[in-house]
Amino acid sequence: MWSVVLVCLVALLGILGTPLPIHGRILPARSHRGIGEQLAALQPNVDAMINAVLNGDFKGQAWDRLAEFTDTIGPRVCGSPQLEQAVDYMVNVMSKDGLDNVHAEQVTNPWWIRGDESAVMLEPRPHKLAILGLGGSVGTATNYSRRGERFGDNPGITAEVMVVGSFDELTNRSSEAKGKIVVYNQFCDWKNNPVYCYGDSVQYRGAGADNASRYGAVAALVRSVTGFSLNTPHTGMMTYSGSVPRIPTASITVEDAEMMQRMVGRGQRIVVTLKMDAYMHPDPQVAHNVVAELRGTEFPDEVVLLSGHLDSWDVGQGSMDDGGGFTISYLALTLMKQLGIAPRRTMRAVLWSCEEFGGVGSEQYFQAHSADAGNFSLVMESDLGVFTPHGIQFSGKSNATQIMSGIMQLLVPLNASTLTGDGEGTDISPWMSAGVPGASLLNENDSYFDYHHSDADTMTVIDPDAIDRSLLTWAITAYAVAGLDFLLPRN
Amino acid sequence: MWSVVLVCLVALLGILGTPLPIHGRILPARSHRGIGEQLAALQPNVDAMINAVLNGDFKGQAWDRLAEFTDTIGPRVCGSPQLEQAVDYMVNVMSKDGLDNVHAEQVTNPWWIRGDESAVMLEPRPHKLAILGLGGSVGTATNYSRRGERFGDNPGITAEVMVVGSFDELTNRSSEAKGKIVVYNQFCDWKNNPVYCYGDSVQYRGAGADNASRYGAVAALVRSVTGFSLNTPHTGMMTYSGSVPRIPTASITVEDAEMMQRMVGRGQRIVVTLKMDAYMHPDPQVAHNVVAELRGTEFPDEVVLLSGHLDSWDVGQGSMDDGGGFTISYLALTLMKQLGIAPRRTMRAVLWSCEEFGGVGSEQYFQAHSADAGNFSLVMESDLGVFTPHGIQFSGKSNATQIMSGIMQLLVPLNASTLTGDGEGTDISPWMSAGVPGASLLNENDSYFDYHHSDADTMTVIDPDAIDRSLLTWAITAYAVAGLDFLLPRN
Repeated sequence: MWSVVLVCLVALLGILGTPLPIHGRILPARSHRGIGEQLAALQPNVDAMINAVLNGDFKGQAWDRLAEFTDTIGPRVCGSPQLEQAVDYMVNVMSKDGLDNVHAEQVTNPWWIRGDESAVMLEPRPHKLAILGLGGSVGTATNYSRRGERFGDNPGITAEVMVVGSFDELTNRSSEAKGKIVVYNQFCDWKNNPVYCYGDSVQYRGAGADNASRYGAVAALVRSVTGFSLNTPHTGMMTYSGSVPRIPTASITVEDAEMMQRMVGRGQRIVVTLKMDAYMHPDPQVAHNVVAELRGTEFPDEVVLLSGHLDSWDVGQGSMDDGGGFTISYLALTLMKQLGIAPRRTMRAVLWSCEEFGGVGSEQYFQAHSADAGNFSLVMESDLGVFTPHGIQFSGKSNATQIMSGIMQLLVPLNASTLTGDGEGTDISPWMSAGVPGASLLNENDSYFDYHHSDADTMTVIDPDAIDRSLLTWAITAYAVAGLDFLLPRN
Repeated sequence: MWSVVLVCLVALLGILGTPLPIHGRILPARSHRGIGEQLAALQPNVDAMINAVLNGDFKGQAWDRLAEFTDTIGPRVCGSPQLEQAVDYMVNVMSKDGLDNVHAEQVTNPWWIRGDESAVMLEPRPHKLAILGLGGSVGTATNYSRRGERFGDNPGITAEVMVVGSFDELTNRSSEAKGKIVVYNQFCDWKNNPVYCYGDSVQYRGAGADNASRYGAVAALVRSVTGFSLNTPHTGMMTYSGSVPRIPTASITVEDAEMMQRMVGRGQRIVVTLKMDAYMHPDPQVAHNVVAELRGTEFPDEVVLLSGHLDSWDVGQGSMDDGGGFTISYLALTLMKQLGIAPRRTMRAVLWSCEEFGGVGSEQYFQAHSADAGNFSLVMESDLGVFTPHGIQFSGKSNATQIMSGIMQLLVPLNASTLTGDGEGTDISPWMSAGVPGASLLNENDSYFDYHHSDADTMTVIDPDAIDRSLLTWAITAYAVAGLDFLLPRN
């Protein structure tokens, strides 16, 4: 069946037959062949990869390996011992797979510790709120040891609630905030604008505490950043500017935010007790990015980087965010290794440490390796789910985009040949800022934020066929870029 | 617009113009008019009801009233003080609405008290399981006072887990169960067969404890009865047969059940500590069904009964199960009262006590009133959600079904004119067994079990337009049956 596809592909790619202008660093002598010709040479190996994953021994391996990893390690928040266990686990797995140059590169992580936490409505009626403290938040305890742990009682903060729908409303009613717990009930039309809504809503998670503190509030509770809820709180990173007192902050559920909005609308007074033992460990923690390669046969110093992040939040299992992403990144190499397929350029899988606190591990990786930026053809990050893939999100200049469009034809058998803009990822963004083209996985992730940063991020979210197809989309794209006669052009 | 509908309706119903054989008790003299003629006479009032709810002052009232009720009272489990508060609240509301004969009829309820509960996996790795003890379960404490409360420490039960996919598997492996915590991971294809799956899965909730106890198990954990989960446990009623020792039982999430299945599949030993303070109060509790009427102008002793249950589980807010059902039942009367529409036959709203423990309040109501069964034209119960309505589920003999088909034409403007079989409801079943035709609300409730008996059953589930249309479907059906020249025939 694939041979028919091959014939069509060669015909199609003939359109792209003339050599394109390329990045200055690369020898023009390498690119005497047209793109169609270059990709046609890769087709038999692409067919073999597709066959192995959809019909062969590799079918289901991505799901099974990810399940065993997440069931064994569980959640692995930035800076935690569990994340170091995950590092050891993956070094061991990738070594057993026979990948090249498997190693862990030391970095330092912050370590935020949740501890016990609760929020109880006392008025107008007793009600236990489902909460998740936001990552980075201070707790409600007054006594912390030098190492950061709370000691003594933690009676929590008991205060009246002020509900606002936006920062603008908070500003307009700022005189009411003093001594209150501010509840943000930022509404957004998630059904129709999920990406916009994530960006809009996440501001309240990030800056809600400081904006409330500015007007004298004692704590901030933030409607979870999601468009669907089964009374599910969603955590995530928050930050303090340092310009106002640090106050504790936690996510609440869509349901409770809406109920409190209705209650104040009826003129009712709401009183809540918030208790959080949370603290940031005072010392930086030793942590590691994990690296493995398939060395390039012709251009071993030139790199196509595939990546996802190894850390997760401290709830759920981090199967989707980002177990799926790092799994397809290293399994792309394992798949090729098992099939005896060697790339011309080095394919490097990097499993990042501490993405969730702002790309901490990847920033340190970039600092250590940025001198090599000229040797990177493409940086890839999968951190948007491994649902049924549709293709690749790509950011690069027009010549590179034209080449990527040709590569997408290899993915027609998977119905995953769409190329859009907006290649992205926290961890690859330093490289993209340095001019390296970037790619992420375009997939059917409409429900992504339903699970994101919550206890619902487990293996039950992951579909075995969808992750298999995501792996293939990822592997074939990387293999094709690694197999070109030249680095992807940057002009 | 409705006048066009009226003309069509009269023409359509002409087909049903001949008087039908009727229930023996009713005077044939009443039925000299054809059904079409009878219903056409009701059309102006039906139009007024539709207009008031979709475009007039009544628009949004169902949602607003239900929200205020559930926000104020919260969950109201059978036998609890909160359920008695709900009784007072609703007697007050319906009295203010000017309904007839508003009163509470005393019954007795069991009262199951959850108390604190937790389940923690100790091996193969630490993991907190999200659980909800099942209603009726004993706790894990050894010391209970005469009133039922636990006293002293409750160290819980720590035991190895045995995972089974079915009762058959448990029977086949029964020798392994002694001393274990049995985990039921009953899988079902919910996406394609939700009704079958509910029935199949709920057996494990109901009888899982006894079936495990039979083989010496010390506790049972049951995969929640749902087809979709965000790590959401769902409670529900369980029963003990009395023939084997009572062991504690709780629901776990789909995610955790599937994970434990995978772990044992890898040969791993799982150890869990289950703690439950749950107990059944030793004394029956005073409780009440709540009744209100619109007295019939011509046949005041003849009744069309509309109902839903006032109690809920002790989690979430019971907005869907069954706040929506009792709300559309009493609001059908309030709507007509406000519009000055009087039914020919008495319309009676009953808000049942303690449906969730097996129709306890409704059974006592039937015992008290069963002598009136001959006067009941139709018993209606809405306990399947108030999502967008499609029509009515009806159980009755062929003559009654034919008449109901005619009545459904009144619901064409709402796109809710479908009549199916299987009118049902725990609370109306005694009346249906006594021969009274029964009806329930056919609605778009595919997601019903996502929320059912969980913390996710809140106002966020309820759509304002859908509950308005459910109210209209419910009210118009009842009004039409109450306005016929005869009781619905039973032959």
